[in-house]
Amino acid sequence: MRVVLQLELAVLPGEARSIAADCFIVVDVLRATTTIAALFGAGLNDLLIVDDLETALRRAARDGRLLFGEVGGLPPEGFDYGNSPIEAAAAPVAGQSAVLFTTNGTKAIAGLAGRGTVLAGAIVNAGAVATACLPYGRVCVVCAGSAGGMRFALDDFAAAAVIVSAVAERSPQVHLGDSARLGCALASTSSWAEETVRLSHHARLLNGLGLSADVDFACRRDTVFIAPTVECVNGDTLATA
Amino acid sequence: MRVVLQLELAVLPGEARSIAADCFIVVDVLRATTTIAALFGAGLNDLLIVDDLETALRRAARDGRLLFGEVGGLPPEGFDYGNSPIEAAAAPVAGQSAVLFTTNGTKAIAGLAGRGTVLAGAIVNAGAVATACLPYGRVCVVCAGSAGGMRFALDDFAAAAVIVSAVAERSPQVHLGDSARLGCALASTSSWAEETVRLSHHARLLNGLGLSADVDFACRRDTVFIAPTVECVNGDTLATA
Repeated sequence: MRVVLQLELAVLPGEARSIAADCFIVVDVLRATTTIAALFGAGLNDLLIVDDLETALRRAARDGRLLFGEVGGLPPEGFDYGNSPIEAAAAPVAGQSAVLFTTNGTKAIAGLAGRGTVLAGAIVNAGAVATACLPYGRVCVVCAGSAGGMRFALDDFAAAAVIVSAVAERSPQVHLGDSARLGCALASTSSWAEETVRLSHHARLLNGLGLSADVDFACRRDTVFIAPTVECVNGDTLATA
Repeated sequence: MRVVLQLELAVLPGEARSIAADCFIVVDVLRATTTIAALFGAGLNDLLIVDDLETALRRAARDGRLLFGEVGGLPPEGFDYGNSPIEAAAAPVAGQSAVLFTTNGTKAIAGLAGRGTVLAGAIVNAGAVATACLPYGRVCVVCAGSAGGMRFALDDFAAAAVIVSAVAERSPQVHLGDSARLGCALASTSSWAEETVRLSHHARLLNGLGLSADVDFACRRDTVFIAPTVECVNGDTLATA
Protein backbone atom coordinates (compact mmCIF):
# COMPACT_ATOMS: atom_id res chain seq x y z
CA MET A 1 0.00 0.00 0.00
CA ARG A 2 1.34 3.38 -0.99
CA VAL A 3 1.03 5.99 1.74
CA VAL A 4 -0.67 9.27 0.83
CA LEU A 5 0.81 12.39 2.42
CA GLN A 6 -1.82 14.89 3.60
CA LEU A 7 -0.32 18.32 2.95
CA GLU A 8 -1.87 21.50 4.31
CA LEU A 9 -0.90 25.17 4.33
CA ALA A 10 -2.23 27.33 7.17
CA VAL A 11 -2.45 30.93 5.93
CA LEU A 12 -2.44 32.16 9.55
CA PRO A 13 -1.35 30.52 12.83
CA GLY A 14 -5.04 30.50 13.87
CA GLU A 15 -5.90 28.24 10.94
CA ALA A 16 -3.32 25.69 12.12
CA ARG A 17 -5.31 25.26 15.34
CA SER A 18 -7.97 23.35 13.41
CA ILE A 19 -5.54 21.27 11.34
CA ALA A 20 -4.45 17.85 12.61
CA ALA A 21 -0.84 17.17 11.62
CA ASP A 22 2.17 15.19 12.83
CA CYS A 23 4.67 17.73 11.55
CA PHE A 24 4.32 21.53 11.40
CA ILE A 25 6.72 23.72 9.42
CA VAL A 26 6.61 27.29 10.75
CA VAL A 27 7.52 30.04 8.28
CA ASP A 28 8.47 33.59 9.30
CA VAL A 29 10.62 34.24 6.28
CA LEU A 30 11.40 37.96 6.92
CA ARG A 31 13.35 37.25 8.92
CA ALA A 32 13.15 34.89 11.92
CA THR A 33 13.09 31.46 10.28
CA THR A 34 15.56 32.51 7.57
CA THR A 35 17.92 33.69 10.31
CA ILE A 36 17.38 30.48 12.30
CA ALA A 37 18.26 28.42 9.22
CA ALA A 38 21.32 30.61 8.56
CA LEU A 39 22.53 30.23 12.17
CA PHE A 40 22.39 26.44 12.03
CA GLY A 41 23.94 26.56 8.56
CA ALA A 42 26.85 28.40 10.22
CA GLY A 43 27.23 25.60 12.77
CA LEU A 44 25.23 26.89 15.77
CA ASN A 45 24.63 24.22 18.40
CA ASP A 46 21.31 25.36 19.86
CA LEU A 47 19.07 28.42 19.90
CA LEU A 48 16.77 29.66 22.61
CA ILE A 49 13.88 31.59 21.02
CA VAL A 50 12.24 34.18 23.30
CA ASP A 51 9.64 36.88 22.81
CA ASP A 52 10.49 39.27 25.61
CA LEU A 53 13.50 41.50 25.83
CA GLU A 54 14.22 41.05 29.56
CA THR A 55 14.35 37.26 29.24
CA ALA A 56 16.57 37.52 26.16
CA LEU A 57 19.13 39.70 27.98
CA ARG A 58 18.96 37.64 31.21
CA ARG A 59 19.35 34.25 29.53
CA ALA A 60 22.17 35.44 27.28
CA ALA A 61 24.09 36.67 30.36
CA ARG A 62 23.27 33.65 32.55
CA ASP A 63 23.92 30.91 29.96
CA GLY A 64 26.75 32.66 28.09
CA ARG A 65 24.72 32.70 24.88
CA LEU A 66 25.30 34.99 21.92
CA LEU A 67 22.40 37.41 21.59
CA PHE A 68 20.56 37.97 18.30
CA GLY A 69 17.37 39.94 17.82
CA GLU A 70 15.46 42.98 16.72
CA VAL A 71 13.06 45.67 17.79
CA GLY A 72 11.50 47.43 14.82
CA GLY A 73 13.88 45.61 12.49
CA LEU A 74 17.09 46.70 14.28
CA PRO A 75 19.23 45.19 17.10
CA PRO A 76 18.36 46.56 20.58
CA GLU A 77 21.07 47.91 22.88
CA GLY A 78 23.24 45.22 24.43
CA PHE A 79 22.68 42.74 21.59
CA ASP A 80 25.61 41.07 19.82
CA TYR A 81 23.76 40.90 16.51
CA GLY A 82 20.48 41.90 14.85
CA ASN A 83 17.98 39.57 13.24
CA SER A 84 19.80 39.69 9.92
CA PRO A 85 20.29 36.32 8.20
CA ILE A 86 23.40 37.74 6.49
CA GLU A 87 24.95 38.58 9.86
CA ALA A 88 23.85 35.18 11.18
CA ALA A 89 25.44 33.31 8.29
CA ALA A 90 28.78 35.11 8.83
CA ALA A 91 28.79 35.12 12.66
CA PRO A 92 31.30 32.91 14.53
CA VAL A 93 28.58 30.67 15.99
CA ALA A 94 30.01 27.19 15.28
CA GLY A 95 29.48 25.00 18.33
CA GLN A 96 27.96 27.93 20.26
CA SER A 97 24.61 28.54 21.90
CA ALA A 98 22.54 31.63 21.19
CA VAL A 99 19.34 33.48 22.05
CA LEU A 100 17.06 34.89 19.34
CA PHE A 101 14.67 37.61 20.44
CA THR A 102 11.78 37.96 18.02
CA THR A 103 8.17 38.78 18.67
CA ASN A 104 6.15 37.33 15.82
CA GLY A 105 7.45 33.89 14.92
CA THR A 106 7.78 32.88 18.57
CA LYS A 107 4.03 33.01 19.18
CA ALA A 108 3.32 30.84 16.14
CA ILE A 109 5.91 28.30 17.29
CA ALA A 110 4.73 28.25 20.91
CA GLY A 111 1.12 27.65 19.78
CA LEU A 112 2.19 24.48 17.96
CA ALA A 113 4.51 23.05 20.61
CA GLY A 114 3.36 19.67 21.87
CA ARG A 115 1.10 19.05 18.87
CA GLY A 116 3.77 17.36 16.75
CA THR A 117 7.25 17.89 15.39
CA VAL A 118 7.87 21.58 14.62
CA LEU A 119 10.45 22.61 12.01
CA ALA A 120 11.65 26.14 11.16
CA GLY A 121 11.16 26.62 7.42
CA ALA A 122 12.17 29.31 4.95
CA ILE A 123 13.03 29.58 1.27
CA VAL A 124 16.74 29.11 2.05
CA ASN A 125 16.08 25.64 3.54
CA ALA A 126 12.90 24.68 1.65
CA GLY A 127 14.44 21.50 0.27
CA ALA A 128 15.80 20.45 3.67
CA VAL A 129 12.48 20.87 5.53
CA ALA A 130 10.60 19.24 2.64
CA THR A 131 12.83 16.17 2.90
CA ALA A 132 12.68 16.15 6.71
CA CYS A 133 8.89 16.12 6.82
CA LEU A 134 8.44 13.21 4.37
CA PRO A 135 8.31 10.47 7.05
CA TYR A 136 5.21 12.13 8.56
CA GLY A 137 1.72 11.30 7.29
CA ARG A 138 0.19 14.72 7.84
CA VAL A 139 2.24 17.86 7.27
CA CYS A 140 1.11 21.44 7.78
CA VAL A 141 3.14 24.46 6.67
CA VAL A 142 2.18 27.42 8.89
CA CYS A 143 2.55 31.09 7.93
CA ALA A 144 3.55 33.07 11.03
CA GLY A 145 1.85 36.19 9.62
CA SER A 146 2.22 39.70 11.01
CA ALA A 147 0.66 41.65 13.91
CA GLY A 148 1.28 38.78 16.32
CA GLY A 149 -0.06 36.26 13.83
CA MET A 150 -3.40 38.01 13.35
CA ARG A 151 -2.67 39.30 9.81
CA PHE A 152 -1.82 37.52 6.58
CA ALA A 153 1.78 38.20 5.45
CA LEU A 154 2.51 37.84 1.74
CA ASP A 155 6.18 37.02 2.31
CA ASP A 156 5.32 34.07 4.57
CA PHE A 157 2.68 32.83 2.14
CA ALA A 158 5.17 32.94 -0.75
CA ALA A 159 7.77 31.02 1.25
CA ALA A 160 5.16 28.51 2.46
CA ALA A 161 4.14 27.97 -1.17
CA VAL A 162 7.76 27.16 -2.07
CA ILE A 163 7.96 24.64 0.78
CA VAL A 164 4.59 23.04 -0.04
CA SER A 165 5.67 22.71 -3.64
CA ALA A 166 9.01 21.16 -2.57
CA VAL A 167 7.16 18.62 -0.39
CA ALA A 168 4.74 17.76 -3.22
CA GLU A 169 7.66 17.24 -5.64
CA ARG A 170 9.22 14.73 -3.23
CA SER A 171 6.03 12.77 -2.43
CA PRO A 172 4.90 9.95 -4.70
CA GLN A 173 1.33 10.55 -3.56
CA VAL A 174 0.12 13.71 -1.92
CA HIS A 175 -3.31 15.04 -1.01
CA LEU A 176 -3.39 18.86 -1.00
CA GLY A 177 -5.68 21.06 1.07
CA ASP A 178 -7.13 24.17 -0.62
CA SER A 179 -4.37 26.63 0.25
CA ALA A 180 -1.62 24.06 -0.38
CA ARG A 181 -3.17 23.61 -3.82
CA LEU A 182 -2.98 27.37 -4.44
CA GLY A 183 0.60 27.48 -3.16
CA CYS A 184 1.72 24.63 -5.44
CA ALA A 185 0.07 26.22 -8.48
CA LEU A 186 1.72 29.59 -7.82
CA ALA A 187 5.17 28.29 -6.88
CA SER A 188 5.35 26.30 -10.13
CA THR A 189 6.37 29.58 -11.82
CA SER A 190 10.04 29.85 -10.82
CA SER A 191 10.16 33.62 -10.32
CA TRP A 192 6.82 33.90 -8.49
CA ALA A 193 8.01 33.43 -4.90
CA GLU A 194 10.83 35.94 -5.08
CA GLU A 195 8.66 38.53 -6.83
CA THR A 196 5.91 37.98 -4.27
CA VAL A 197 8.21 38.25 -1.25
CA ARG A 198 9.40 41.57 -2.69
CA LEU A 199 5.78 42.80 -3.01
CA SER A 200 5.14 42.21 0.69
CA HIS A 201 4.74 44.88 3.34
CA HIS A 202 7.63 43.30 5.34
CA ALA A 203 10.01 43.46 2.38
CA ARG A 204 9.18 47.10 1.72
CA LEU A 205 9.67 47.86 5.44
CA LEU A 206 13.12 46.20 5.43
CA ASN A 207 14.09 47.98 2.21
CA GLY A 208 13.16 51.24 3.94
CA LEU A 209 15.55 50.36 6.78
CA GLY A 210 18.37 49.73 4.32
CA LEU A 211 18.08 45.97 4.81
CA SER A 212 17.29 44.96 1.23
CA ALA A 213 20.27 42.57 1.20
CA ASP A 214 18.45 40.54 3.87
CA VAL A 215 15.43 40.29 1.56
CA ASP A 216 17.71 39.11 -1.26
CA PHE A 217 19.25 36.51 1.07
CA ALA A 218 15.80 35.28 2.18
CA CYS A 219 14.68 34.77 -1.43
CA ARG A 220 17.54 32.43 -2.43
CA ARG A 221 16.47 28.82 -2.57
CA ASP A 222 18.23 25.94 -0.87
CA THR A 223 21.36 27.65 0.37
CA VAL A 224 21.08 25.91 3.77
CA PHE A 225 20.69 22.15 4.04
CA ILE A 226 19.39 21.96 7.59
CA ALA A 227 15.84 21.60 8.94
CA PRO A 228 15.97 23.03 12.48
CA THR A 229 13.63 21.34 14.95
CA VAL A 230 11.90 23.48 17.57
CA GLU A 231 10.77 22.01 20.87
CA CYS A 232 9.42 23.31 24.16
CA VAL A 233 11.73 22.10 26.92
CA ASN A 234 10.92 23.13 30.53
CA GLY A 235 9.06 26.18 29.25
CA ASP A 236 11.89 27.18 26.89
CA THR A 237 11.42 27.24 23.11
CA LEU A 238 14.61 25.60 21.92
CA ALA A 239 15.78 25.00 18.35
CA THR A 240 18.42 22.44 17.41
CA ALA A 241 19.77 21.23 14.07
CA MET B 1 -6.97 66.50 -1.54
CA ARG B 2 -7.44 63.14 -3.18
CA VAL B 3 -8.79 60.46 -0.86
CA VAL B 4 -6.86 57.17 -0.66
CA LEU B 5 -8.98 54.04 -0.29
CA GLN B 6 -7.50 51.51 2.15
CA LEU B 7 -8.34 48.10 0.69
CA GLU B 8 -7.84 44.89 2.64
CA LEU B 9 -8.63 41.24 2.01
CA ALA B 10 -9.20 39.00 5.05
CA VAL B 11 -8.27 35.42 4.11
CA LEU B 12 -10.37 34.13 7.02
CA PRO B 13 -13.17 35.72 9.10
CA GLY B 14 -10.79 35.69 12.08
CA GLU B 15 -8.39 37.99 10.24
CA ALA B 16 -11.18 40.54 9.74
CA ARG B 17 -11.46 40.91 13.53
CA SER B 18 -8.17 42.82 13.54
CA ILE B 19 -8.96 44.97 10.50
CA ALA B 20 -10.60 48.37 10.96
CA ALA B 21 -12.97 49.07 8.06
CA ASP B 22 -16.12 51.05 7.32
CA CYS B 23 -17.40 48.55 4.77
CA PHE B 24 -17.01 44.77 4.79
CA ILE B 25 -17.79 42.63 1.73
CA VAL B 26 -18.45 39.04 2.81
CA VAL B 27 -17.73 36.34 0.21
CA ASP B 28 -19.08 32.78 0.43
CA VAL B 29 -19.06 32.18 -3.30
CA LEU B 30 -20.06 28.48 -3.30
CA ARG B 31 -22.81 29.15 -2.80
CA ALA B 32 -24.39 31.44 -0.19
CA THR B 33 -23.43 34.91 -1.41
CA THR B 34 -23.84 33.93 -5.09
CA THR B 35 -27.35 32.71 -4.25
CA ILE B 36 -28.08 35.88 -2.26
CA ALA B 37 -27.03 38.00 -5.24
CA ALA B 38 -29.12 35.84 -7.60
CA LEU B 39 -32.20 36.15 -5.36
CA PHE B 40 -32.02 39.95 -5.32
CA GLY B 41 -31.26 39.90 -9.03
CA ALA B 42 -34.58 38.04 -9.43
CA GLY B 43 -36.39 40.80 -7.51
CA LEU B 44 -36.52 39.45 -3.94
CA ASN B 45 -37.58 42.07 -1.39
CA ASP B 46 -35.72 40.87 1.71
CA LEU B 47 -33.91 37.80 2.97
CA LEU B 48 -33.61 36.49 6.51
CA ILE B 49 -30.32 34.56 6.85
CA VAL B 50 -30.28 31.93 9.60
CA ASP B 51 -27.87 29.21 10.66
CA ASP B 52 -30.18 26.77 12.43
CA LEU B 53 -32.72 24.56 10.80
CA GLU B 54 -35.50 24.95 13.39
CA THR B 55 -35.43 28.74 13.16
CA ALA B 56 -35.45 28.55 9.35
CA LEU B 57 -38.57 26.37 9.29
CA ARG B 58 -40.33 28.36 12.05
CA ARG B 59 -39.67 31.79 10.54
CA ALA B 60 -40.65 30.64 7.04
CA ALA B 61 -43.99 29.37 8.40
CA ARG B 62 -44.61 32.34 10.72
CA ASP B 63 -43.66 35.13 8.30
CA GLY B 64 -44.87 33.45 5.11
CA ARG B 65 -41.36 33.46 3.67
CA LEU B 66 -40.08 31.23 0.87
CA LEU B 67 -37.52 28.79 2.24
CA PHE B 68 -34.11 28.29 0.62
CA GLY B 69 -31.22 26.31 2.06
CA GLU B 70 -29.02 23.28 2.21
CA VAL B 71 -27.66 20.55 4.42
CA GLY B 72 -24.65 18.80 2.87
CA GLY B 73 -25.26 20.72 -0.36
CA LEU B 74 -28.90 19.62 -0.83
CA PRO B 75 -32.28 21.10 0.27
CA PRO B 76 -33.59 19.66 3.57
CA GLU B 77 -37.14 18.25 3.82
CA GLY B 78 -39.82 20.93 3.89
CA PHE B 79 -37.71 23.46 1.96
CA ASP B 80 -39.08 25.18 -1.15
CA TYR B 81 -35.64 25.41 -2.75
CA GLY B 82 -32.01 24.40 -2.22
CA ASN B 83 -29.05 26.76 -2.01
CA SER B 84 -28.62 26.72 -5.80
CA PRO B 85 -28.03 30.13 -7.39
CA ILE B 86 -29.55 28.78 -10.63
CA GLU B 87 -32.77 27.88 -8.81
CA ALA B 88 -32.65 31.24 -7.02
CA ALA B 89 -32.28 33.17 -10.27
CA ALA B 90 -35.29 31.39 -11.79
CA ALA B 91 -37.53 31.30 -8.69
CA PRO B 92 -40.69 33.49 -8.60
CA VAL B 93 -39.34 35.68 -5.79
CA ALA B 94 -40.10 39.18 -7.13
CA GLY B 95 -41.48 41.31 -4.30
CA GLN B 96 -41.35 38.35 -1.90
CA SER B 97 -39.57 37.67 1.38
CA ALA B 98 -37.46 34.57 1.94
CA VAL B 99 -35.33 32.69 4.45
CA LEU B 100 -31.90 31.33 3.57
CA PHE B 101 -30.59 28.57 5.79
CA THR B 102 -26.81 28.24 5.51
CA THR B 103 -24.24 27.38 8.12
CA ASN B 104 -20.96 28.86 7.01
CA GLY B 105 -21.53 32.34 5.60
CA THR B 106 -23.92 33.28 8.40
CA LYS B 107 -21.23 33.14 11.08
CA ALA B 108 -18.90 35.34 9.05
CA ILE B 109 -21.70 37.90 8.52
CA ALA B 110 -22.84 37.87 12.16
CA GLY B 111 -19.25 38.46 13.35
CA LEU B 112 -19.09 41.67 11.31
CA ALA B 113 -22.51 43.07 12.14
CA GLY B 114 -22.33 46.41 13.91
CA ARG B 115 -18.75 47.08 12.79
CA GLY B 116 -19.69 48.81 9.54
CA THR B 117 -21.72 48.35 6.39
CA VAL B 118 -21.77 44.69 5.34
CA LEU B 119 -22.33 43.70 1.69
CA ALA B 120 -22.80 40.21 0.24
CA GLY B 121 -20.23 39.79 -2.53
CA ALA B 122 -19.59 37.16 -5.18
CA ILE B 123 -18.14 36.96 -8.67
CA VAL B 124 -21.61 37.44 -10.19
CA ASN B 125 -21.96 40.86 -8.51
CA ALA B 126 -18.27 41.85 -8.18
CA GLY B 127 -18.76 45.06 -10.16
CA ALA B 128 -21.83 46.06 -8.16
CA VAL B 129 -20.22 45.58 -4.73
CA ALA B 130 -17.01 47.25 -5.94
CA THR B 131 -19.02 50.32 -6.98
CA ALA B 132 -21.12 50.28 -3.79
CA CYS B 133 -18.08 50.29 -1.48
CA LEU B 134 -16.33 53.24 -3.15
CA PRO B 135 -17.79 55.93 -0.85
CA TYR B 136 -16.12 54.22 2.14
CA GLY B 137 -12.56 55.05 3.16
CA ARG B 138 -11.62 51.62 4.43
CA VAL B 139 -12.93 48.51 2.70
CA CYS B 140 -12.29 44.91 3.71
CA VAL B 141 -13.28 41.92 1.57
CA VAL B 142 -13.77 38.91 3.88
CA CYS B 143 -13.49 35.26 2.82
CA ALA B 144 -16.10 33.22 4.71
CA GLY B 145 -13.89 30.11 4.50
CA SER B 146 -14.97 26.59 5.35
CA ALA B 147 -15.37 24.58 8.58
CA GLY B 148 -17.31 27.38 10.24
CA GLY B 149 -14.79 29.97 9.03
CA MET B 150 -11.79 28.20 10.56
CA ARG B 151 -10.30 27.00 7.25
CA PHE B 152 -9.13 28.84 4.14
CA ALA B 153 -11.37 28.20 1.13
CA LEU B 154 -9.82 28.62 -2.30
CA ASP B 155 -13.15 29.46 -3.98
CA ASP B 156 -13.76 32.35 -1.58
CA PHE B 157 -10.23 33.64 -2.00
CA ALA B 158 -10.55 33.59 -5.80
CA ALA B 159 -13.84 35.50 -5.65
CA ALA B 160 -12.45 37.97 -3.10
CA ALA B 161 -9.51 38.57 -5.45
CA VAL B 162 -11.93 39.41 -8.28
CA ILE B 163 -13.75 41.89 -6.01
CA VAL B 164 -10.56 43.48 -4.69
CA SER B 165 -9.33 43.88 -8.25
CA ALA B 166 -12.68 45.42 -9.29
CA VAL B 167 -12.45 47.91 -6.39
CA ALA B 168 -8.85 48.81 -7.27
CA GLU B 169 -9.83 49.40 -10.93
CA ARG B 170 -12.50 51.87 -9.82
CA SER B 171 -10.38 53.79 -7.29
CA PRO B 172 -8.15 56.64 -8.41
CA GLN B 173 -5.90 56.00 -5.40
CA VAL B 174 -5.88 52.81 -3.43
CA HIS B 175 -3.60 51.44 -0.72
CA LEU B 176 -3.53 47.62 -0.74
CA GLY B 177 -2.86 45.35 2.23
CA ASP B 178 -0.68 42.27 1.64
CA SER B 179 -3.43 39.81 0.70
CA ALA B 180 -5.31 42.42 -1.37
CA ARG B 181 -2.05 42.93 -3.26
CA LEU B 182 -1.80 39.18 -3.94
CA GLY B 183 -5.46 39.06 -4.99
CA CYS B 184 -5.06 41.96 -7.43
CA ALA B 185 -1.95 40.42 -8.98
CA LEU B 186 -3.65 37.05 -9.46
CA ALA B 187 -7.01 38.35 -10.69
CA SER B 188 -5.27 40.39 -13.40
CA THR B 189 -5.10 37.15 -15.43
CA SER B 190 -8.66 36.89 -16.75
CA SER B 191 -9.04 33.11 -16.49
CA TRP B 192 -7.38 32.78 -13.08
CA ALA B 193 -10.44 33.20 -10.84
CA GLU B 194 -12.61 30.70 -12.68
CA GLU B 195 -9.82 28.12 -12.88
CA THR B 196 -9.08 28.62 -9.19
CA VAL B 197 -12.71 28.32 -8.08
CA ARG B 198 -12.82 25.02 -10.01
CA LEU B 199 -9.69 23.76 -8.19
CA SER B 200 -11.32 24.29 -4.79
CA HIS B 201 -12.53 21.57 -2.46
CA HIS B 202 -16.04 23.12 -2.48
CA ALA B 203 -16.25 23.03 -6.28
CA ARG B 204 -15.19 19.40 -6.41
CA LEU B 205 -17.75 18.58 -3.68
CA LEU B 206 -20.53 20.27 -5.67
CA ASN B 207 -19.43 18.56 -8.88
CA GLY B 208 -19.67 15.24 -7.03
CA LEU B 209 -23.27 16.09 -6.07
CA GLY B 210 -24.13 16.78 -9.72
CA LEU B 211 -24.21 20.54 -9.07
CA SER B 212 -21.48 21.62 -11.49
CA ALA B 213 -23.90 24.03 -13.20
CA ASP B 214 -23.98 25.99 -9.92
CA VAL B 215 -20.19 26.27 -10.02
CA ASP B 216 -20.41 27.50 -13.64
CA PHE B 217 -23.03 30.07 -12.57
CA ALA B 218 -20.89 31.26 -9.65
CA CYS B 219 -17.88 31.83 -11.93
CA ARG B 220 -19.63 34.20 -14.35
CA ARG B 221 -18.69 37.81 -13.77
CA ASP B 222 -21.13 40.68 -13.36
CA THR B 223 -24.40 38.96 -14.21
CA VAL B 224 -26.15 40.62 -11.25
CA PHE B 225 -26.04 44.38 -10.76
CA ILE B 226 -27.02 44.50 -7.10
CA ALA B 227 -24.94 44.82 -3.93
CA PRO B 228 -27.09 43.31 -1.16
CA THR B 229 -26.65 44.94 2.25
CA VAL B 230 -26.74 42.74 5.33
CA GLU B 231 -27.80 44.13 8.72
CA CYS B 232 -28.56 42.76 12.14
CA VAL B 233 -32.06 43.93 13.08
CA ASN B 234 -33.50 42.83 16.45
CA GLY B 235 -31.21 39.79 16.46
CA ASP B 236 -32.13 38.86 12.87
CA THR B 237 -29.56 38.85 10.07
CA LEU B 238 -31.47 40.54 7.26
CA ALA B 239 -30.35 41.23 3.68
CA THR B 240 -31.97 43.82 1.42
CA ALA B 241 -31.14 45.09 -2.05
